Amino acid sequence: MSARAASPGRILVLNPNSSEAVTAAIDAAVEPLRQPGGPAIAVDRLRSGPPGIATQRDADSVVVPLCDLVARDPSDAFVLACFSDPGLHAVREAAGGRPVMGIAEWGLLRALTLGDQFGIVALSPASVQRQARYVRQMGLGARYAGSWPIAATAEETAGEAVRDRLIAAARHLVADRGAGVVVLGCAGMAGHRRAVADAIGRPVVEPTQWAVAAALGALRLAAS
Amino acid sequence: MSARAASPGRILVLNPNSSEAVTAAIDAAVEPLRQPGGPAIAVDRLRSGPPGIATQRDADSVVVPLCDLVARDPSDAFVLACFSDPGLHAVREAAGGRPVMGIAEWGLLRALTLGDQFGIVALSPASVQRQARYVRQMGLGARYAGSWPIAATAEETAGEAVRDRLIAAARHLVADRGAGVVVLGCAGMAGHRRAVADAIGRPVVEPTQWAVAAALGALRLAAS
Amino acid sequence: MSARAASPGRILVLNPNSSEAVTAAIDAAVEPLRQPGGPAIAVDRLRSGPPGIATQRDADSVVVPLCDLVARDPSDAFVLACFSDPGLHAVREAAGGRPVMGIAEWGLLRALTLGDQFGIVALSPASVQRQARYVRQMGLGARYAGSWPIAATAEETAGEAVRDRLIAAARHLVADRGAGVVVLGCAGMAGHRRAVADAIGRPVVEPTQWAVAAALGALRLAAS
Amino acid sequence: MSARAASPGRILVLNPNSSEAVTAAIDAAVEPLRQPGGPAIAVDRLRSGPPGIATQRDADSVVVPLCDLVARDPSDAFVLACFSDPGLHAVREAAGGRPVMGIAEWGLLRALTLGDQFGIVALSPASVQRQARYVRQMGLGARYAGSWPIAATAEETAGEAVRDRLIAAARHLVADRGAGVVVLGCAGMAGHRRAVADAIGRPVVEPTQWAVAAALGALRLAAS
Amino acid sequence: MSARAASPGRILVLNPNSSEAVTAAIDAAVEPLRQPGGPAIAVDRLRSGPPGIATQRDADSVVVPLCDLVARDPSDAFVLACFSDPGLHAVREAAGGRPVMGIAEWGLLRALTLGDQFGIVALSPASVQRQARYVRQMGLGARYAGSWPIAATAEETAGEAVRDRLIAAARHLVADRGAGVVVLGCAGMAGHRRAVADAIGRPVVEPTQWAVAAALGALRLAAS
Amino acid sequence: MSARAASPGRILVLNPNSSEAVTAAIDAAVEPLRQPGGPAIAVDRLRSGPPGIATQRDADSVVVPLCDLVARDPSDAFVLACFSDPGLHAVREAAGGRPVMGIAEWGLLRALTLGDQFGIVALSPASVQRQARYVRQMGLGARYAGSWPIAATAEETAGEAVRDRLIAAARHLVADRGAGVVVLGCAGMAGHRRAVADAIGRPVVEPTQWAVAAALGALRLAAS
Repeated sequence: MSARAASPGRILVLNPNSSEAVTAAIDAAVEPLRQPGGPAIAVDRLRSGPPGIATQRDADSVVVPLCDLVARDPSDAFVLACFSDPGLHAVREAAGGRPVMGIAEWGLLRALTLGDQFGIVALSPASVQRQARYVRQMGLGARYAGSWPIAATAEETAGEAVRDRLIAAARHLVADRGAGVVVLGCAGMAGHRRAVADAIGRPVVEPTQWAVAAALGALRLAAS
Repeated sequence: MSARAASPGRILVLNPNSSEAVTAAIDAAVEPLRQPGGPAIAVDRLRSGPPGIATQRDADSVVVPLCDLVARDPSDAFVLACFSDPGLHAVREAAGGRPVMGIAEWGLLRALTLGDQFGIVALSPASVQRQARYVRQMGLGARYAGSWPIAATAEETAGEAVRDRLIAAARHLVADRGAGVVVLGCAGMAGHRRAVADAIGRPVVEPTQWAVAAALGALRLAAS
Repeated sequence: MSARAASPGRILVLNPNSSEAVTAAIDAAVEPLRQPGGPAIAVDRLRSGPPGIATQRDADSVVVPLCDLVARDPSDAFVLACFSDPGLHAVREAAGGRPVMGIAEWGLLRALTLGDQFGIVALSPASVQRQARYVRQMGLGARYAGSWPIAATAEETAGEAVRDRLIAAARHLVADRGAGVVVLGCAGMAGHRRAVADAIGRPVVEPTQWAVAAALGALRLAAS
Repeated sequence: MSARAASPGRILVLNPNSSEAVTAAIDAAVEPLRQPGGPAIAVDRLRSGPPGIATQRDADSVVVPLCDLVARDPSDAFVLACFSDPGLHAVREAAGGRPVMGIAEWGLLRALTLGDQFGIVALSPASVQRQARYVRQMGLGARYAGSWPIAATAEETAGEAVRDRLIAAARHLVADRGAGVVVLGCAGMAGHRRAVADAIGRPVVEPTQWAVAAALGALRLAAS
Repeated sequence: MSARAASPGRILVLNPNSSEAVTAAIDAAVEPLRQPGGPAIAVDRLRSGPPGIATQRDADSVVVPLCDLVARDPSDAFVLACFSDPGLHAVREAAGGRPVMGIAEWGLLRALTLGDQFGIVALSPASVQRQARYVRQMGLGARYAGSWPIAATAEETAGEAVRDRLIAAARHLVADRGAGVVVLGCAGMAGHRRAVADAIGRPVVEPTQWAVAAALGALRLAAS
Repeated sequence: MSARAASPGRILVLNPNSSEAVTAAIDAAVEPLRQPGGPAIAVDRLRSGPPGIATQRDADSVVVPLCDLVARDPSDAFVLACFSDPGLHAVREAAGGRPVMGIAEWGLLRALTLGDQFGIVALSPASVQRQARYVRQMGLGARYAGSWPIAATAEETAGEAVRDRLIAAARHLVADRGAGVVVLGCAGMAGHRRAVADAIGRPVVEPTQWAVAAALGALRLAAS
């Protein structure tokens, strides 16, 4: 065993909505992954984005700006920090081979290793529909206990007032849907992870953290 | 953005077979993930293990020793470095909440983010059967292009002579089975990753690297 | 039995790319569905669209313009005439309850009634990836024989030169993949339907025709 | 754009049971699809059929009579107006290439375009079992929220008394099973479509209407 | 451990076609399951049945006669000895709680215990379609390697001339489709089981034998 | 029809735990399958086994002893009488071609013929997780209504006190999960089969009985 010099590198975590509160929640969530000598982990928001990704149009409207931003940004890896993974495949085309990680993608993959059936706390019924489609698209339906909405905006989820609703939704997923692990279905919910996990006694996945952890791995392994 | 002091911590990568050549290949593969100030990444073999995991009995026979070893080892996280993920759920019970990552598990999850259908280069027809069962158990069948055997032992895969067979198997998976990404189905194959990727022009996943990357993430995030 | 007065109404078939040749092929394909006293069936192209939907960015880039166009257009129903069904769910939001039909969606549904396994003739390997994701998203994977690319642009498919490649791809899907019915995976291929069907001796679905037929049904049934 | 002369043609909608009330309900349901200059849409019942398709034997017993009837009937297309789609594949053999549409088949396909998960209002627990088998046979299980029985005969469903039970069943499917769209699982229920849809605030599919709409499309496109 | 008196009882194995050659092949196949003191195992053919079940109409046409025969026959259990399992659920209704076993059903279930993926040797392309639908209906698609036709009638399969074609089809299923076990897809093929198994070096299931073995189990356990 | 001399032969039913009460319950359950002139059916326990298979380690710990025991035991067929089917594939390797039947495997296969959706009464939440994984591994997820735990040890299930909890769990599976048939998820529950079936009015499968019935069939057919 030996230790080697830190890789140079920078990860850009992009919040596709323009909310400062959500962006701040994301920044706090990824703080434990910043390491001396390790890659810089920058967090930014799409200034032209909607205040939150509520409708399918919201999700689709940010794809071209995200592609353009990524194409001209010199970062070494990117994380799309919205649970709709908007434009994941288009942004990968734009990134020219640099890693692009979606937070829904990695949140769900991490969940597969923490319990048999995963549930997702969603913002709204419209999000539930998108998540059902996305879980099928990923081919993970056999492990999906379902999604449950809390009727909040992305911005609201970054505040304290929503915590009880998050816990109630997570409890429902565990008790009535058989979820053994719960994924927070919005980047803005990041600050509530521990409180929800403590309340339900089951693992809770904050998806941006795992997408960034994956980006860190990809950077380290790029040269191997 | 800020940077914080490195987490203390140690990851033990356990090769469940007793082969020194395979263990050395694993050690080299995880070298890029060792970082100054980061967790120690130790690699060891199960001295009581078989020379390779060829039969189902081989896979099942190492579970109790792995559980015992993990129960008394003070490491902060564990990686089971055999593509059968032998005893993954039993070892998790033994680890008392410390992260335990399987390399098949994480190799397949990483592959899901690199292509639509994944193929696996397997050691033998018996490994192919195990992999088919495991992919179904994980619920990933909708993304599985298949496995293809090279008729080698784990120990042989750590040598140079097997490289052409690995490339031929990977080519078959891409050309005839529609794989867009290939996973190396034995920890001993680690040293061939780049050569296979270069030959087939598609991403190739070395699974131990990604299980260790996941363990690094889990350690970083444990306190958050 | 009686006969009633024709419903008033207008269907707008939108080609999301800007190709005049593709638009003309679509217009010819839907001609048999125009009936005296029946709804008008208009065919138009997205003038701001790319010349063809080749990349995922192409597909995603037309969503907002399509939403805007549909929101202000007074037609009674819409058909998105690109086999990527770009923005199908977002356009439905924009249509305010008026029917919006995707051609991939309806082409695949019609195929389910004509054979056990369906195959898709695709433009390119990138289209194959999109189709694999979309078939899973629709939940139709159990009936999917696969897609096969012909290496052509949407514009080229509207010409005669591509016919032999279409037939070869369809033959491959039947003989080697077990397809019992073949779907043309680009609106521009519409003029080749009969020739391909005659050549392979199996049903071939031209998807825009079936999306328009469905829109006609929806208009007729809207008041019932 | 132009308009062409109406296709000649005749669609025979066959109610496999002998109930006059169910036949009348079907006839009323397809009325909006009759158009001046369009195909004749005749509705008839199988006089030798059972009063309703309640048991599996009922469903299987009508297959040979249906085949014989279709073989000697000169209509251009057929719709089997029983939600068991009895003998669908055998009748297709008998039809010699003329289109044969099943109402369960087309009711479910239409539902796929109106919501993410579909539920079915069934006559009885035995119907629920048949529907579960049929949904799997069609390969649509990933979109199936379930069926819920109302304990009625086909004949009873054509009357007013059953409406409240239909609404209660549809509400259960939406509220407790996650259905986003509901399919009426018996041709006799046709007259209740709008009332159920208004009550539950979700799309409700009357399947015979969509099977006939598909037959209309097939006739129009037969010559193209 | 003790031994008890043999249960009284009689199993009727019904060949739904009228072929004497097929019936004789079935009778020979079940001979090893006849035991002194055990249930009588009678084999009969449906005299009104078609010479073989070739079309879907053939399959559907025998359901009512089978139901009638079973309803008035005093046997204690029934086996439907046609690989289409014609009328399995209707005959169960007619049997009033007495066990009714289908040979496709039990042939496939036995195969699940002998290999990971099963293949089926089919009579004709039409049989392949029926088998694909039936495997999905049973929910076994994840283990299905496919079916391969030999272009023979049921009657022909009972003769020697067809053996080479059976072996060739079985070899194809193993070598090109990944089958680890092969099921003979027609009761008439029973006499070839050992020859095919010897030729391909993989388990081959004769399905009538396993349906009868299951009926024997059901009779023994009926009183427990 | 004729009758032939009984096959010689012996089936060893192995309880992988060391509980005498569970072993006695198994012995009583298989009694109806013992026949004069038929194979001997011996029941034994793994003396080195844990008192019950509660944890995943329990399940994995018995594999090597089971393999060793089977390799040197002269019986003609084996049944692994623990619902975790511990080491099923490894024991098959050890058996050198002699039949090895798992009780979970055969209990689930028998259930597929008795109802559309099967539920499993489980010992504990940990068993539920194992069963969910195993059902997926077998590829039977499309027919799985779920498992429900009763919070008992294997030894306790052999007593009378647990009966009410078994009935309550089975009722839950039928009423709330849609199970049409229930499988007893522990060999120790064998004595309660009839009582549970009477209470819920649905078929209940005692899995050891069906694994032994299958072993009897395999012995009878071994020479054919």
